[in-house]
Amino acid sequence: MFSSMSSSRVRKEVDEALMTFVDRQRPVLLSISDDMAPMLAALDVLLAGGKRLRPAFCYWGWRAAGGEDRPEAVAAAASLELLQASALIHDDVMDASDTRRGQPSVHRRFQAMAEAAGWPGAADSFGEGAAILLGDVCLAWSGEMYDQCGLSLEALQRARHWYDLMRTEVMCGQYLDMLEQARGTGSVATALRVIEYKSAKYTIERPLHLGAALAGAGPETLGALSAYGLPLGIAFQLRDDVLGVFGDPAQTGKPAGDDLREGKRTVLVALALQRATPAQAAVVADRLSDPALDLAGVGQLRALMVDTGALAACEAMIESYAAEARAALDTAPISAEARTALTELAIAATARTV
Amino acid sequence: MFSSMSSSRVRKEVDEALMTFVDRQRPVLLSISDDMAPMLAALDVLLAGGKRLRPAFCYWGWRAAGGEDRPEAVAAAASLELLQASALIHDDVMDASDTRRGQPSVHRRFQAMAEAAGWPGAADSFGEGAAILLGDVCLAWSGEMYDQCGLSLEALQRARHWYDLMRTEVMCGQYLDMLEQARGTGSVATALRVIEYKSAKYTIERPLHLGAALAGAGPETLGALSAYGLPLGIAFQLRDDVLGVFGDPAQTGKPAGDDLREGKRTVLVALALQRATPAQAAVVADRLSDPALDLAGVGQLRALMVDTGALAACEAMIESYAAEARAALDTAPISAEARTALTELAIAATARTV
Repeated sequence: MFSSMSSSRVRKEVDEALMTFVDRQRPVLLSISDDMAPMLAALDVLLAGGKRLRPAFCYWGWRAAGGEDRPEAVAAAASLELLQASALIHDDVMDASDTRRGQPSVHRRFQAMAEAAGWPGAADSFGEGAAILLGDVCLAWSGEMYDQCGLSLEALQRARHWYDLMRTEVMCGQYLDMLEQARGTGSVATALRVIEYKSAKYTIERPLHLGAALAGAGPETLGALSAYGLPLGIAFQLRDDVLGVFGDPAQTGKPAGDDLREGKRTVLVALALQRATPAQAAVVADRLSDPALDLAGVGQLRALMVDTGALAACEAMIESYAAEARAALDTAPISAEARTALTELAIAATARTV
Repeated sequence: MFSSMSSSRVRKEVDEALMTFVDRQRPVLLSISDDMAPMLAALDVLLAGGKRLRPAFCYWGWRAAGGEDRPEAVAAAASLELLQASALIHDDVMDASDTRRGQPSVHRRFQAMAEAAGWPGAADSFGEGAAILLGDVCLAWSGEMYDQCGLSLEALQRARHWYDLMRTEVMCGQYLDMLEQARGTGSVATALRVIEYKSAKYTIERPLHLGAALAGAGPETLGALSAYGLPLGIAFQLRDDVLGVFGDPAQTGKPAGDDLREGKRTVLVALALQRATPAQAAVVADRLSDPALDLAGVGQLRALMVDTGALAACEAMIESYAAEARAALDTAPISAEARTALTELAIAATARTV
């Protein structure tokens, strides 16, 4: 997805830093017990996928603030991928998702392991428990990797505020997301608030701030990165919501219509309800959150989102937020190289294909 | 449970440090949304209970290694209580426990909130999801509190290895525990291996190491603390297992026989199976892990553990491990004050009442 040499090089270095870290943990786990091997295998599978968006934004936040190209900065950035792994593993338990990145989700993987072994205990509980623990391991390791990246203790401590805030914000955002889903309500405004914390800050603004703060950025640079990162983060999540309904499973790594079955209260859904006739609203009430929703049902809800104009409205919002981000970038006090990379990342984060 | 003035003072200071930290987080959460208030309330209830054992061992590890009585060391030690809160919240989800510290478990609390509100979404999933997220918040905050304790960056970095190892070990130990439960097997040897990581290292040895390393301890002191902490940690968990079957609910904060209903593969259970007649083994196979086990069933399993001699054997193991810990303490190269406090903690950690 990254077109420039430098972006693909960053991605490769992030991958290498991740593998180096996990390889260092491997003997620690296996010295506790050979029985830990399935946990490592599950993590390997999960980390093989993913776009490394958050590390990329963190790295370019560092460069934007004048940081040199250094492997230590890449390692600090790569630690965000372990935080993301934790969030995905736990999110899949909470949503009872069967797949992630085109593979069985971690809890399903361990459930299948228990079923194959024929253990007497409940396989689904075992799968969920193993996934909760692996998510905890990833969360702990993300902090560990950050602290071991090799940057100075002063730089790590200076930027820690943003790391801490980012974690708290994403967890709160996920809670609010789940709350809207449980309540079964959700206006465009409440859905946007969820997006802000769960996604826009977590995926883009805070990784930029973290990288920039590591390089010693002042308020002006941090503010400029917010002006770019927040609207881009909203556009990114709106794109993700559209892909969650209309995306190609081969690209999203999730079955068609999974977000509809899970009943996600996205901005797209809120836009549809805002525009729906009473008959259309009844269809949404009837089919959204139906775990047994088949492809015909997915097609019906897709058509409804087109017919109500919700899809077009959502695309217009994506374009508007993305344009706001691009405009902010034009005037940001950052290096030409960082501007180029962040322009590419803006395109990648909002592209119609994954 | 702490008899000396100085131990009760440490406990009070740990409580204060925890409250100060949580009170600083409160406005961060509420600025995201008023809807975060129930998360804070659930954490307040959980943190109101607990014996603060891990902070106590950490603090006395610091003192044992020559650290002065300083509030910064207490704050670092208190951060372990947030790690423990995370472990308890997630453990209760994994075990589907209804209560913790005499109160509804966090997932049941949020389930009840959803039911009372009459939300259309599944209340049990909402409860579990909220608990997974609050556990994640506590895990993240434990690291944050450690880093903000006020000790020097060099001291924090020097001791971080033990913090990191402790987290990895307890999560692996919990996985192995769940694995034994799912397999429905479990010898005395495998149950002891689970105890070593899930409990002995996590509750006693590593908190001592963490505190000692913060104070700059060398290998000799760390080794002496292991010689005391590991056997004491095993004795502590064996006592906890006995209380889980025979304890008074008013003291344990858990319904009578909860461990039996959950089917925990403890050393006590392994000892009973080792000594059981075929008829007794059939009773264990029939009643252990039965979620509907009533008080008569609990009584039957208790009688079996007495009749087989498993309880007496377990008590003998507790006394033997505790004696080993006391003997190690006698020759440890630590201050008289630390020796006195660690002697008291050894008694408190293995007492027959909570």
